[in-house]
Amino acid sequence: MSLLALLAALAASPEPPTPPAKALAPAEVVAAAPAADWVAIAPSDLLVMDLAPDASPDAAARPRRVVIQLLPAPFSQGWVGNIRKLAAAHWWDGTSINRAQDNYVVQWGDPDGEDKAKALPEGLAVVPQSEYEVTDWSQLKAAVAHKKGEAIFVGDVAQEWPEYASMLRLANSQDSYSTKTLIVGGFPVGERLNDRSVWPIHCYGTVGVGRNEPPDTGTGAELYAVIGHAPRQLDRNIAVVGRVIEGMEHLSTLPRGTGDLGFYKTAPERTPIRAIRIGTDVPDLPAFEYLGTESESFARYADARANRRDAFYIQPAGGVDICNVPVPIRRRK
Amino acid sequence: MSLLALLAALAASPEPPTPPAKALAPAEVVAAAPAADWVAIAPSDLLVMDLAPDASPDAAARPRRVVIQLLPAPFSQGWVGNIRKLAAAHWWDGTSINRAQDNYVVQWGDPDGEDKAKALPEGLAVVPQSEYEVTDWSQLKAAVAHKKGEAIFVGDVAQEWPEYASMLRLANSQDSYSTKTLIVGGFPVGERLNDRSVWPIHCYGTVGVGRNEPPDTGTGAELYAVIGHAPRQLDRNIAVVGRVIEGMEHLSTLPRGTGDLGFYKTAPERTPIRAIRIGTDVPDLPAFEYLGTESESFARYADARANRRDAFYIQPAGGVDICNVPVPIRRRK
Repeated sequence: MSLLALLAALAASPEPPTPPAKALAPAEVVAAAPAADWVAIAPSDLLVMDLAPDASPDAAARPRRVVIQLLPAPFSQGWVGNIRKLAAAHWWDGTSINRAQDNYVVQWGDPDGEDKAKALPEGLAVVPQSEYEVTDWSQLKAAVAHKKGEAIFVGDVAQEWPEYASMLRLANSQDSYSTKTLIVGGFPVGERLNDRSVWPIHCYGTVGVGRNEPPDTGTGAELYAVIGHAPRQLDRNIAVVGRVIEGMEHLSTLPRGTGDLGFYKTAPERTPIRAIRIGTDVPDLPAFEYLGTESESFARYADARANRRDAFYIQPAGGVDICNVPVPIRRRK
Repeated sequence: MSLLALLAALAASPEPPTPPAKALAPAEVVAAAPAADWVAIAPSDLLVMDLAPDASPDAAARPRRVVIQLLPAPFSQGWVGNIRKLAAAHWWDGTSINRAQDNYVVQWGDPDGEDKAKALPEGLAVVPQSEYEVTDWSQLKAAVAHKKGEAIFVGDVAQEWPEYASMLRLANSQDSYSTKTLIVGGFPVGERLNDRSVWPIHCYGTVGVGRNEPPDTGTGAELYAVIGHAPRQLDRNIAVVGRVIEGMEHLSTLPRGTGDLGFYKTAPERTPIRAIRIGTDVPDLPAFEYLGTESESFARYADARANRRDAFYIQPAGGVDICNVPVPIRRRK
């Protein structure tokens, strides 16, 4: 389908749902969502990073825990599998946060580099570059079919699955990096129509796999989190493996490194990592849930993000980019 | 011009310049730019904020200075004029940073609110909402004509000014919030074709004017800086007045507030502001310059941002959003 034909098709698609009489802010829409619209996140899909306390006198009272939700199948599962092995081996314990570059990323792992100081556990996969994208849509369908809250958000994937057609156009999202943006399995993805490719994208809080120059794709031992404007140029060039769902401020407020690329110049500047575990191995971990993207509540939320009609605003934007529709995530009540 | 006609016109427009034989990263393109491609920023267009040192033992050795470039005419000049008066009156001295909301903004001014504790200087303008946009393009033309480096970047403004047509399509930018994005006077703006409106947009580091609910538009005494993904929904709803060009890390790493909207709950959490001055009143201020958007260097830089072909990358994006083409700014050599 040509771009012009695509736009013509979009112009003919149904209007988004009528907004409620009283204009709610996005956070109010989320707060009003019924319990049935929320989807539990399995503890086995969480990665929990505990940083050492900071230097302030009362630091012990403020633990620095960062909770990361790992990306579901069919995306990046080679790296995600490696990350599960690294956590099971307690490989990250005693490593550190080694880099903080403003408006870009915070990065952690072995401060001496992946190939030098610390041996990696056996059995890690060498993941090919082809895993940066998914082109077999039957994998996508298998991943999301019949799972409430794991639906497709907008785009032509939705056209192939009529049950999701009502959500088409909600976000009115134009994208410089893909033909269209969607949400699959609760995560934002890009879609390119000419070769039917779909891939996870970088937004604020996205976690990815550091690597050396190609053809290296990284193991997963070196990870980063985005602390600035979405660096979408990294999409399809580096593995996205998850997103921070709690404790983001423990990464985003770290002092920026003054070396090249924001690496810390001296060891004392690095923040020690006490432990990284899969959620099932963390006894005191609360349960988390996200707002199912198939729900009417999500549709209202996305519409409110694209068209702010609450009291503070005077001109609704009429559109929204995918990284400005973060999937709502909270502790389960 | 309809959207379809616009796209057809774009499809027929010239290709971007051929990339150099050796693929440079964007920072390398900038480093290689000749001196003539750089445009001096007048000290009278800078706002310099000095924060109190932090609590660490060696803090005095690390001054926390934030340098902001004010938006040029024809944008937001009512608020910019107020800001000049507030700085001349030393109004901000002794105020504080009162809010830090993760992935959103840091905000400063009178901690007790604009209408309560501290009297504002006389003669501040009450700026109408209509000033959020510029619809008189003769103002735009007057602002940029015959000023090297103050040119138009992409878009239909360029079609009206054939001398800038060669820069059309460079960024291949699709935007959810405007018909098209441009750079005018060195600053990113959005353009809406149906009513010929142009307005400054929010990116990482953008500085804007806090306000109460409409019809209030704020005076400029309450300011914020964006510390996360571009909150483009604020465009045309709030006054953009500038951008941070140095010292951004002193804002982005501030502890996040734990009150509603990231406001600090207690006074000791606030960072005191020692002084805010216009650059001409700061004796030790270095000179700054930006890479002129009319230059061949800028064209190469924008192309490299949209199509990373340096060694680390395997798949150039083929496009870029306007907030991922920050105008390069540096201390003048």
